[in-house]
Amino acid sequence: MSNLTINADRLLRRIDELGSIGRDAQGRLVRVAASDMDRLGRDRLVGWLHEAGLEVAVDRIGNIFGIWQDDANAGQLPVMLGSHIDTVIDAGIYDGCYGVLSALEAIESLKEAGFAPARPLAVAAFTNEEGVRYSPDMMGSLVFAGGIGVDEALAAVGTDGSVLGKELERIGYAGRHQPGFLKPQSYVELHVEQGPVLEREGIAIGAVENLQGISWQRITIEGQANHAGTTPMSMRRDAGVAAARVIGFLADRAGASPTPTVATVGTIAFEPNAINVIPSRATFTVDLRDPDETHLREEEAALAALLDDLAAGAGVTVQAESLARFEPVTLDAGIVSLIEEIAGAAGLSCRRITSGAGHDAQMIARIAPSAMIFVPSRGGISHNPAEFTAAGELVAGANILLGVAARLAAD
Amino acid sequence: MSNLTINADRLLRRIDELGSIGRDAQGRLVRVAASDMDRLGRDRLVGWLHEAGLEVAVDRIGNIFGIWQDDANAGQLPVMLGSHIDTVIDAGIYDGCYGVLSALEAIESLKEAGFAPARPLAVAAFTNEEGVRYSPDMMGSLVFAGGIGVDEALAAVGTDGSVLGKELERIGYAGRHQPGFLKPQSYVELHVEQGPVLEREGIAIGAVENLQGISWQRITIEGQANHAGTTPMSMRRDAGVAAARVIGFLADRAGASPTPTVATVGTIAFEPNAINVIPSRATFTVDLRDPDETHLREEEAALAALLDDLAAGAGVTVQAESLARFEPVTLDAGIVSLIEEIAGAAGLSCRRITSGAGHDAQMIARIAPSAMIFVPSRGGISHNPAEFTAAGELVAGANILLGVAARLAAD
Repeated sequence: MSNLTINADRLLRRIDELGSIGRDAQGRLVRVAASDMDRLGRDRLVGWLHEAGLEVAVDRIGNIFGIWQDDANAGQLPVMLGSHIDTVIDAGIYDGCYGVLSALEAIESLKEAGFAPARPLAVAAFTNEEGVRYSPDMMGSLVFAGGIGVDEALAAVGTDGSVLGKELERIGYAGRHQPGFLKPQSYVELHVEQGPVLEREGIAIGAVENLQGISWQRITIEGQANHAGTTPMSMRRDAGVAAARVIGFLADRAGASPTPTVATVGTIAFEPNAINVIPSRATFTVDLRDPDETHLREEEAALAALLDDLAAGAGVTVQAESLARFEPVTLDAGIVSLIEEIAGAAGLSCRRITSGAGHDAQMIARIAPSAMIFVPSRGGISHNPAEFTAAGELVAGANILLGVAARLAAD
Repeated sequence: MSNLTINADRLLRRIDELGSIGRDAQGRLVRVAASDMDRLGRDRLVGWLHEAGLEVAVDRIGNIFGIWQDDANAGQLPVMLGSHIDTVIDAGIYDGCYGVLSALEAIESLKEAGFAPARPLAVAAFTNEEGVRYSPDMMGSLVFAGGIGVDEALAAVGTDGSVLGKELERIGYAGRHQPGFLKPQSYVELHVEQGPVLEREGIAIGAVENLQGISWQRITIEGQANHAGTTPMSMRRDAGVAAARVIGFLADRAGASPTPTVATVGTIAFEPNAINVIPSRATFTVDLRDPDETHLREEEAALAALLDDLAAGAGVTVQAESLARFEPVTLDAGIVSLIEEIAGAAGLSCRRITSGAGHDAQMIARIAPSAMIFVPSRGGISHNPAEFTAAGELVAGANILLGVAARLAAD
């Protein structure tokens, strides 16, 4: 199969088309999980799966699968290739979508070339990878891997008060299959790096050997509302100032850390949120990541200690709730080596790399040998309309995925 | 008139009734300016003005007046007593309402007692004193005093995108009188202190001799949205962290200031406001107050310098917009002395005091001799449902207002 390649035009055309689906009045890409916009993207993907002659299956958490099998290999465990097509708010067009559409493209190209795989091949598009509307993120793959129960996940309440299960029914993607119904023999996910490493080093392919651990928390600080003009600074219990202390502390600590720790406060709200009233409540989220579980625990402990100090010193009460917690994950050494081998045979530069982002692969790794392939992201920019990977780099990555899939499906 | 007093039961009953009007589903008092809730409160007040036999007039900015005049004094400039009945979100029942209802009570009591004033007496309820929905605060009295044009004020766009002029028409309080149509000979405003001084010192009456200057700004910080997991701390342009630096700086600086400066950040918003995305934009408000104009300017300059440093150092762009700016105001020495005299004659303890809050009196002081009377606030708590002043203290303050009004209207 060494000289077999994907249909580059078809892949690039589909990436652009899917990227044009699910935009709001301001033109922002907002295909958040289980929304009307997400439905539009899902419908288009399912259409392409049918066009490719794949058998389409949807499970109860809304994960979409496109399966290619024949009488000869129907009894074997499938090679699964996939990612997600849900997006953040005001997203770029590559995150997740590139992996799903490349998986489809690789399988469709193998099928068209008359390749006769020893095992079935399947495309997977997992529900709510981004976790913007419902927590935790990577939910579809987590449920598929048995990490949490499907009923618990379907009961998740969104930032807009919606319930995931009801929304999946509403948009027509509450499937009948039990999550995990399709046990993979192996799983490979192709993704844009979303970081600066490959571009900075001028390397075409990243063979992802592990992923950062992730800790998400929601912090609620309660102080006392009071008049902004008449309350002396010494008599205040200002929840907003306490929140600001936490944000500054996290940025200072992560900025000075010798480890690759990152800390982000991405959401915040004050109550009553009036210009002349001292905030009685501040609610915000904390996203902590580190590739080393010991370091990640140290960061969580440092935050907890600061919150205790605030509660003791600033006259506020503090509540911390864990929204998601994933340990760092090591991917399958055999598939990582195969990626390096296929990239080398194709004459592409390749290096092993750690993923700073969470990916569905870290969930599927619980039930099958898994790995990831990265391609460069310009400026490392992601979760942003400026997210960009050049066409040549996209095609190169998809061809490596095809080569790896062919080898995995051959034995 | 020395032995004439107000009808305490009627005043307290009206304060409780008005405090029960304009509550939301959670029971919070939310009579923000020109809202449906505000309309309910206005309608009740107008009903009481009619019951008291006062001539009701509404001006173009929605200020409500209840005027008591007769053929003998119709030619004279009126003594005006008033405050406001709009509230913050989740407010107490005394702020503003106590002053308006006591003004009505004082005039109604004088009228019932057959007092024959040498000049008309008028109750005033000014529009949008709180400034929660529309900026600037103290808008109705500011327009009445000619501080800004009525058409400019009517064009104000609210935090909810509404336009004040349209909302006043909608709720039926876009009056026909030109603001300022009723020029006062003097103005007296009775109000709860909203601060801790009188309670702490066990003093019944505050004779307000001046008010703090107020500076309101909206700060917008623009950084760059990026992936929370893959963007090294050193490569971030985090608008949320920059905002937190400003909030911490203001609290530290005001907390350490030898002057009575207060600084408050009461509102904040991040964009895109997603848990795993570095904030690209942070917008927040700053409320700075000081009784000394020179000190207030120093605080504004220190904030501006910090914002310049952030723009230079943190890779963000910063925009500061002034929402409101009022210099400290000195009230009329003659009326302040009269308040002390009347309080003394009534056997009530009294001290001169500075108002930490902005009040309509500081606007009316531009066009007429003005002063204020304060009564204690338990714990200094205000802009909060826990706002409380004891019945006896409320009645005592209203009787001082009656005594002052009678003297001012007698000559």
